[in-house]
Amino acid sequence: MTGAPGSAVIVGTGLIGTSVALALRARGTEVWLSDADPAAARLAADLGAGRLLPGGPVAGGPVAGGPVAGGAVPGGPADVAVLAVPPAAIARCLAQAQRDGLARCCTDVASVKELPLREAAELGCDLTTFVPGHPMAGRERSGPAAARSDLFAGQPWVICPGTLTSRAAVEAVTGLAVACGARPIRLSAAEHDRWVALVSHLPHLVSSAMAALCADAPEGALALAGPGLRDVTRIAAGDSGLWTGILAANAGPVRAALQRMTGQLAQAADALAGLDAGHGAAGLGAPGKDAPGRDAAVKQLTALLDAGREGVERIPGKRGGPAPHYAVVQVVIGDRPGELARLFAAAGSAGINIEDVRIEHSPGLPAGVAELSVRPEVARRLSAALADGGWPVASPA
Amino acid sequence: MTGAPGSAVIVGTGLIGTSVALALRARGTEVWLSDADPAAARLAADLGAGRLLPGGPVAGGPVAGGPVAGGAVPGGPADVAVLAVPPAAIARCLAQAQRDGLARCCTDVASVKELPLREAAELGCDLTTFVPGHPMAGRERSGPAAARSDLFAGQPWVICPGTLTSRAAVEAVTGLAVACGARPIRLSAAEHDRWVALVSHLPHLVSSAMAALCADAPEGALALAGPGLRDVTRIAAGDSGLWTGILAANAGPVRAALQRMTGQLAQAADALAGLDAGHGAAGLGAPGKDAPGRDAAVKQLTALLDAGREGVERIPGKRGGPAPHYAVVQVVIGDRPGELARLFAAAGSAGINIEDVRIEHSPGLPAGVAELSVRPEVARRLSAALADGGWPVASPA
Repeated sequence: MTGAPGSAVIVGTGLIGTSVALALRARGTEVWLSDADPAAARLAADLGAGRLLPGGPVAGGPVAGGPVAGGAVPGGPADVAVLAVPPAAIARCLAQAQRDGLARCCTDVASVKELPLREAAELGCDLTTFVPGHPMAGRERSGPAAARSDLFAGQPWVICPGTLTSRAAVEAVTGLAVACGARPIRLSAAEHDRWVALVSHLPHLVSSAMAALCADAPEGALALAGPGLRDVTRIAAGDSGLWTGILAANAGPVRAALQRMTGQLAQAADALAGLDAGHGAAGLGAPGKDAPGRDAAVKQLTALLDAGREGVERIPGKRGGPAPHYAVVQVVIGDRPGELARLFAAAGSAGINIEDVRIEHSPGLPAGVAELSVRPEVARRLSAALADGGWPVASPA
Repeated sequence: MTGAPGSAVIVGTGLIGTSVALALRARGTEVWLSDADPAAARLAADLGAGRLLPGGPVAGGPVAGGPVAGGAVPGGPADVAVLAVPPAAIARCLAQAQRDGLARCCTDVASVKELPLREAAELGCDLTTFVPGHPMAGRERSGPAAARSDLFAGQPWVICPGTLTSRAAVEAVTGLAVACGARPIRLSAAEHDRWVALVSHLPHLVSSAMAALCADAPEGALALAGPGLRDVTRIAAGDSGLWTGILAANAGPVRAALQRMTGQLAQAADALAGLDAGHGAAGLGAPGKDAPGRDAAVKQLTALLDAGREGVERIPGKRGGPAPHYAVVQVVIGDRPGELARLFAAAGSAGINIEDVRIEHSPGLPAGVAELSVRPEVARRLSAALADGGWPVASPA
């Protein structure tokens, strides 16, 4: 079975579980809903995510315990059960689902994969029908009300079959991911955990540490904060309990990534120490007595910042895949109807396709700047065509 | 003089200098523009930021040197000169401006204050008429084309008079800040440097270090990146040369803030080490033999994350003049030359001015979505006009 599942049980109707349910409903899958909190399950059902599973909650409850009550799918096991519960609850939840015969195979959606798998093995779960999974999507908001049927559209959905996993189970869970519009990616659980430690868990820790310094900073200092600090600390607003659980469950890989981070910062501290000592004639460029040490320190800092720029460029944009590199032609335009049409008509006449455009308006000013992104090889031709048309054109930034 | 200056010279027509010029022009100030790069000064003048200063560039040039040529304001010294050049160029630029008699007082806009002041003293500058300043505003983009007259609206503008500074000069620079719509804040240079180290320079360094880890990460790992990593690393895309200059010029305070950051991360590493060792029975909540150590580690992590949440809450939100609210009309467009021209021509024919436009391309798809921002009252009319023209129009987001 590689298509959308005919029937599914969603255990845990939070943001992710309910979003999976909505996506499956849109594909015609019969969906059963269950949550340790009956009100959450009811809300999901009211949203059109499926029907309540008869027989009460089958959920992991809070991280460190909570009830795991039985339930049964009318008409026999569903094609797949999605355990959308916290990492620490997965193994118990899986054991219960397998005892109850909820579904022919199970998957989870947790952001760590090795620990739940190890715990499931310790509990004697059937690992041939359990396929650990991790849809890479989320929102700042949580709970069923924040769910969206298109939450996973175009996003990676990691699937981590082990050596014991049956082919049928892997295909069923792959079909589930595809039915949700996601791109299935197969990784080992260890690889997954190492990678998310770097791109998800470490950034959260770093953001929290930076924000923690602001907790006891003078109010006057925070009044000077700009968008940079807000960007860096945004994710630190996340749920502490949830994130402690995630970090704890992936402690080894996060620790390794953190060690590399502190290595980078130690180099920066070294460079700053060199610059701090070499002050005075600093900015004037006059060769002070410790000029060589200063130069080395400047180089070290620049190298770190350059590596950062390189890293940012490698991070895929919103849609996956690196952003294409365009040349930008800036042109001053009047703020009146038809001006952009004339501009684009001039580009069109020159046979040039504008790939993207941004317009900067200074409120209250009669002119603005249009930034036209084009393939690098046609940038000069576009500048010439627009200059011929009488527009003030600036050289590319 | 506490009102807007009657006349001003802007030395350095980058993002900040040109934005100051635009704001002053809107208040009727006579503005003279100068830049080491004549094309940048011309672009600023084309944008309506003022007139070119006769007598050539009076600018600091690149951080480590560059020409500082003279210039003269027709009709005698201006009320104020704004030195919007890199930190390392300020002292030389100030000395030149004072030799040329450009203005009755000078201020700068650099993000560090102690070093340029020390250097100005070393160069024998007149410190009674120099008032170090720092408008706390910026954008990810640079250059005159990104300038906006409302860049400083509602933002803090730090002013750091020293013991020598004349009252008249302080009042003139305060008037300048108010004329730009900013909130003047008086601080000592040392206090300013310590505070921006925490809320601006350290976040940049942290963002760069995190992004640098992504420079040599496996591509598969980066494919799993979500919005969290993108937020944390966004500012690392900034100009390396510019930021090396800033960090170097504020090395002492940045180093002190970095030490506190590494202290936080060391605690996190300790906690993770405790959790890494205590795995196994971890998530099941069963009391393992090292349960007390594990509990302590969990508490330590949670405390850090809680402090981070507290810190985020203390950071003031986006301030200043809210962006004008436009309605967005989404329209599906083909990816071929002339398509945008036809689209804008249709809008122009309907007498509608497009205020802003964003284009979303899904790689590999022949079509994209153009998001057209217009004044709310014309959105329906635009939708109708485009639908009439045969474009698939979506309802506003």
